[in-house]
Amino acid sequence: MAASIPEEVRRIFTQAPFITNLGLELSALGQGECTTILPLRPRHLQQDGYVHAGVHAAMADHTAGGAAATLIKKGQIVLTMEFKINLLRAAKGERLICRAKVLKPGSRFIVVESEVFCEQAGEEQLVSKATATIAVVAAKPVDRHQKEGDDT
Amino acid sequence: MAASIPEEVRRIFTQAPFITNLGLELSALGQGECTTILPLRPRHLQQDGYVHAGVHAAMADHTAGGAAATLIKKGQIVLTMEFKINLLRAAKGERLICRAKVLKPGSRFIVVESEVFCEQAGEEQLVSKATATIAVVAAKPVDRHQKEGDDT
Amino acid sequence: MAASIPEEVRRIFTQAPFITNLGLELSALGQGECTTILPLRPRHLQQDGYVHAGVHAAMADHTAGGAAATLIKKGQIVLTMEFKINLLRAAKGERLICRAKVLKPGSRFIVVESEVFCEQAGEEQLVSKATATIAVVAAKPVDRHQKEGDDT
Amino acid sequence: MAASIPEEVRRIFTQAPFITNLGLELSALGQGECTTILPLRPRHLQQDGYVHAGVHAAMADHTAGGAAATLIKKGQIVLTMEFKINLLRAAKGERLICRAKVLKPGSRFIVVESEVFCEQAGEEQLVSKATATIAVVAAKPVDRHQKEGDDT
Repeated sequence: MAASIPEEVRRIFTQAPFITNLGLELSALGQGECTTILPLRPRHLQQDGYVHAGVHAAMADHTAGGAAATLIKKGQIVLTMEFKINLLRAAKGERLICRAKVLKPGSRFIVVESEVFCEQAGEEQLVSKATATIAVVAAKPVDRHQKEGDDT
Repeated sequence: MAASIPEEVRRIFTQAPFITNLGLELSALGQGECTTILPLRPRHLQQDGYVHAGVHAAMADHTAGGAAATLIKKGQIVLTMEFKINLLRAAKGERLICRAKVLKPGSRFIVVESEVFCEQAGEEQLVSKATATIAVVAAKPVDRHQKEGDDT
Repeated sequence: MAASIPEEVRRIFTQAPFITNLGLELSALGQGECTTILPLRPRHLQQDGYVHAGVHAAMADHTAGGAAATLIKKGQIVLTMEFKINLLRAAKGERLICRAKVLKPGSRFIVVESEVFCEQAGEEQLVSKATATIAVVAAKPVDRHQKEGDDT
Repeated sequence: MAASIPEEVRRIFTQAPFITNLGLELSALGQGECTTILPLRPRHLQQDGYVHAGVHAAMADHTAGGAAATLIKKGQIVLTMEFKINLLRAAKGERLICRAKVLKPGSRFIVVESEVFCEQAGEEQLVSKATATIAVVAAKPVDRHQKEGDDT
């Protein structure tokens, strides 16, 4: 898959410390589509042993950004404007799988839906669903330069 | 403040691995109100050096749960049903402060608003705002027992 | 279809003045599913000749209520707790068609998705999509009695 | 107030058939703020005698558009991208009052909050609250021309 990953998709999955620290892995990409996997660890849970709503949200949002990033032009980046998520079932299992799909493409903003499934003993169950509005904006050369400087 | 913290509030801030791992700290409580602080670290950031939307969301959601938990009865717990968050400004600074306030109390579900501010050089700026619907449900004795077993 | 329409579904489509006045028609029903049609009139439009967002919202919400009402018990009614709608495309055409489908059934609340399509010259286009949380509550005998009294 | 009403605000309150037909009245304006009133009639109600969620939504959305329209430039128009509304209490009374306030201004989109109050016997109660994202776009000369043509 490596050869065909658009730069912005690669960047958001490798250069976002919150995401790499969370353990979110890019699994599959298509035009306007992105799938990610999160192997569940105790650090993803809330006080009753279920996956925390913030983990659902982070995964749904970031995967939506990945789906949107497959549709943008070189020099553009994606930024989440807003999202809404419904937690449908308490999630407990081996891993989460998120499938995001663009509902409406656009040059200024892109609407994406993300479905999060929990896999336990080989069975998947839909545990949350989100809708996100992602802004498409020009990357600021200075910010990118500073950031690259910071990274070294 | 310790003496007056309701059990469920204390529980969600000390027994949720995702939250303690994130570094979220309970700062203040009132009837239907909760304030938290998140000292910002590189691990909270996304690919452009700003706080990740998932961090905004986790903080807004959990603090909303804290505000709701000040209004429930003994033996009840809080669970997020859904929330919506608007990311208003890119956040970069020393810490986030989240202030959640119950908009509508209820015996079955509670609606809460959370405002997230970013503090930089002594100045606060509103960076995101969320509205959450929190379900009030009876704690399952078995789950609690199992959980306590897991803890030992 | 008449013989199989659950009482609450029939009631929300015949006893809601805002809906009958709007012109919304029940078109099809299934378990957890509801389809409605709105023949477009000038009174449904906003200042630029497109269907008003409030019409999208009313149709999406009410059809979601219809889908939820196919799953409740006798003596129960449905009430919208919250919904979120994304307006994806400006709608101009002969009629709107809304298809609502339950995403998560439940005894206390039901999550429903509604897709609104605009039909023009025989072609359908998705113009908006909503997610609604519908509360399932016991009908209050007094309220129903008073209402019946008011109607005479 | 008439002399100071920006053109786009005037237009959305006088040229939108759905809104004039609903009976929504512009009541007050400020920078980034808009207040409207809706005298309640039987045609605004749902099956249990309460104001229909679609009426809450239409009022919250349109008043948000009014608040956003106070901040745009000549030649620009406002379009709702998405909104989320929480129905907090069943509304029954003489009139609804909606107060919308810009949460975050912007040149491309504006985030607005709308609170809807129900007035009964001189007392106001918060009955719903919405957050809307409003796009700021250039008016299309052709559309406006056609529309003006249609109006004659």
